[in-house]
Amino acid sequence: MSRPKPLSGFPELTPQERIVEQLVLDRLRETFELHGFGSIETRSVEPLDRLAKQGEIDKEVYAVQRVAAEPGTPAELGLHFDLTVPFARYVLEHAHELAFPFRRYQIQKVWRGERPQEGRYREFTQADIDIVDAGTLAAHHDVELPLVTLGALDRLHVDLGLPPVLMRVNNRRLSEGFYRGLDIADPAAVLRQVDKLDKIGPERVTEVLVSDSGVSLAQARSVVQLAQISAPDESFVDEVHRLGVHSDELDEGLELLAAVVRAARTHVPGRLVADLKIARGLDYYTGTVYETELVGYESWGSISSGGRYESLATDGRTTYPGVGLSIGVTRLLAPLLGRKVLQPTRSVPTAVLVAVESEETRSSAVAVAEALRARGIPTEVAPKADRFGRQIRYADRRGIPYVWFGPAASSEVKDIRTGEQLPADPDRWNPPAADLHPQVRS
Amino acid sequence: MSRPKPLSGFPELTPQERIVEQLVLDRLRETFELHGFGSIETRSVEPLDRLAKQGEIDKEVYAVQRVAAEPGTPAELGLHFDLTVPFARYVLEHAHELAFPFRRYQIQKVWRGERPQEGRYREFTQADIDIVDAGTLAAHHDVELPLVTLGALDRLHVDLGLPPVLMRVNNRRLSEGFYRGLDIADPAAVLRQVDKLDKIGPERVTEVLVSDSGVSLAQARSVVQLAQISAPDESFVDEVHRLGVHSDELDEGLELLAAVVRAARTHVPGRLVADLKIARGLDYYTGTVYETELVGYESWGSISSGGRYESLATDGRTTYPGVGLSIGVTRLLAPLLGRKVLQPTRSVPTAVLVAVESEETRSSAVAVAEALRARGIPTEVAPKADRFGRQIRYADRRGIPYVWFGPAASSEVKDIRTGEQLPADPDRWNPPAADLHPQVRS
Repeated sequence: MSRPKPLSGFPELTPQERIVEQLVLDRLRETFELHGFGSIETRSVEPLDRLAKQGEIDKEVYAVQRVAAEPGTPAELGLHFDLTVPFARYVLEHAHELAFPFRRYQIQKVWRGERPQEGRYREFTQADIDIVDAGTLAAHHDVELPLVTLGALDRLHVDLGLPPVLMRVNNRRLSEGFYRGLDIADPAAVLRQVDKLDKIGPERVTEVLVSDSGVSLAQARSVVQLAQISAPDESFVDEVHRLGVHSDELDEGLELLAAVVRAARTHVPGRLVADLKIARGLDYYTGTVYETELVGYESWGSISSGGRYESLATDGRTTYPGVGLSIGVTRLLAPLLGRKVLQPTRSVPTAVLVAVESEETRSSAVAVAEALRARGIPTEVAPKADRFGRQIRYADRRGIPYVWFGPAASSEVKDIRTGEQLPADPDRWNPPAADLHPQVRS
Repeated sequence: MSRPKPLSGFPELTPQERIVEQLVLDRLRETFELHGFGSIETRSVEPLDRLAKQGEIDKEVYAVQRVAAEPGTPAELGLHFDLTVPFARYVLEHAHELAFPFRRYQIQKVWRGERPQEGRYREFTQADIDIVDAGTLAAHHDVELPLVTLGALDRLHVDLGLPPVLMRVNNRRLSEGFYRGLDIADPAAVLRQVDKLDKIGPERVTEVLVSDSGVSLAQARSVVQLAQISAPDESFVDEVHRLGVHSDELDEGLELLAAVVRAARTHVPGRLVADLKIARGLDYYTGTVYETELVGYESWGSISSGGRYESLATDGRTTYPGVGLSIGVTRLLAPLLGRKVLQPTRSVPTAVLVAVESEETRSSAVAVAEALRARGIPTEVAPKADRFGRQIRYADRRGIPYVWFGPAASSEVKDIRTGEQLPADPDRWNPPAADLHPQVRS
């Protein structure tokens, strides 16, 4: 077997890069659980007829079928392409075993048969949080979700050195209420054009609105003025009022969005703005919508998106509304790892390598290692009773900071970074906290 | 959309069951990292021609192909059915980025299109540890691996109440050396019959050896006598010697197996026996082989297996020998969860529910929650300003042990299991350690 080639679109991390990913996933999980979100995992496959109803994405679904299936048998299963479709199915299937409102997080791989290019993957990891209720879901959860997500992303920034983020939030009721206040008949069509604002600019959007969406020039100008409003505080409410458009739905949307901005200013200052051009492509969003960019890497697009959906799932009798946010873990990490922006302090979990003087004394080295592990210190025993210089090189190549010499009764431990070597007792010695586990240096 | 039906063979856990699984996976990871194993994940798919060379398993491979692929195009990718084949490929592909000997653990889902039945799944989680080296791999790693695995499984027993385990170990060099000492021409053919000893019994194996494997009755009797030797200590060596067969390979195998048994008696007493009938089906094992049963649930078969392979992978110039053990996490857990042998102390991560007196004071409840979370206490704010009785019921239904009343300045916290309610400061109060996170009760 010659050296295999990577499969385009299926990124695979080195052990070093994986350490960074684990630290990121651990922080996300910890934040989610601190806020009372429980973990679920759904199976990787769904019936194809459930996956292939979602529009554009259909082409990208991967079908799954046993190699031994009768030739010509149509595939029945496909790999999930996000965590929302399977979650909706999970809620319906397990509703009788769940307590509502149900708060869950889900960290799993998803698959899309996209054309591979930077920032697009065929297999990648997402981390989703959602709150769903049966019947109605309180509006304060629209305020809560971005605080949890921004709290999680801020820990990645502060603890691990990832770039800071900025979340842009809008509310579809606000936009659609405004359009209705302008007597626009098809608000959804208008929203689709507004979504292109960043790409084609305000003049072109105005033109397209008039030519394609059956909107007058005056209406189009108001629509574009609304979309250009953005503020880190509640001042956006007055700006909207100054456009002189009124409707109950608009007021409701303004109030909901103001509550999000207000809470964010208290809890995650500087990380969230109201941005009235945010539309989000997916049709199932019905209220608040969220998008998040990495500050300094805006061209990578949104690394965390989501929104409110009045009907995540329904079984005909009960409707389950929800609000959710998804973090694109691979999308966020793969380019930072590829550019070596984030690197671990070592390539293995090991804090101590116990040197072996001869194969005959290996068991006393194993005993030292056991004593250290019993107190939570990750420890390896040297694989070969080489000259000590070579054993130190073994540690050095992996970034293991300490090498241990001698049996328990007469031990010394060497910090191979400084060369300092001191007597130590395997039942008492502790490395400094920063050396116990790998850290990220950025 | 009506209530969806489960897909047979694709088990999906409830949030409660998932809490148990997370605790199990956390313990495994912690033990592996304490022994210096680093995590990797491989992509879920491999080229089909790499997967479909492994004999029996071929029929069970799932092919993966874009729904939008041209009809009639043959699939090129398949889902991996274990973690060894992808690991071998990973070692070859990334050899230039790895330091050898390379110690890795890998916890991922695998897929097999088996006929679903109890204990057989189409999607399931495995936890593998392997050590591979370039060129040659020291024999002491054959001793180390079962100690790590048994240490991990013993923590599941002691900390989480899973049943204890018993690992059965043999060495193929021992068996094959013995057969060669008997002048048996095709040791592999004999080994395949010996593998049936538990199923069909010693008489039948003797018969089949004579009728199908070209072995004399005297040879067959010796073979079966060897296979019936089993001991928790080194006494098996003398038992083998008493059979009066000699070869260098046999002596080598005896010494290697004795070293495993000796170390296990010191480090994990009572958990490992030499059992000379263990053969393991897979042809790539060349030395030590391991199988592990749950005590009291022996009929479930092996929940952790593995062995030494002289050539895990080769690129033509370098050969990579390895030794590995795989824990069948789903195989181990799904039946224990299904029988309610293991249950979590609560169904959510939340330790404290902060009650909300009215929607107007929600922000002061949020402030209390933030203070608790800042000190690592998982906290939810009640979703609705209901009567307190209802809010307590919300906590009770989820097993949340504490409900918090009042703003920070005049707070009280109630243990809803005992009814005890005491004044508390959100910047100082701590729950007992056992209440901080969900535990397993068995």
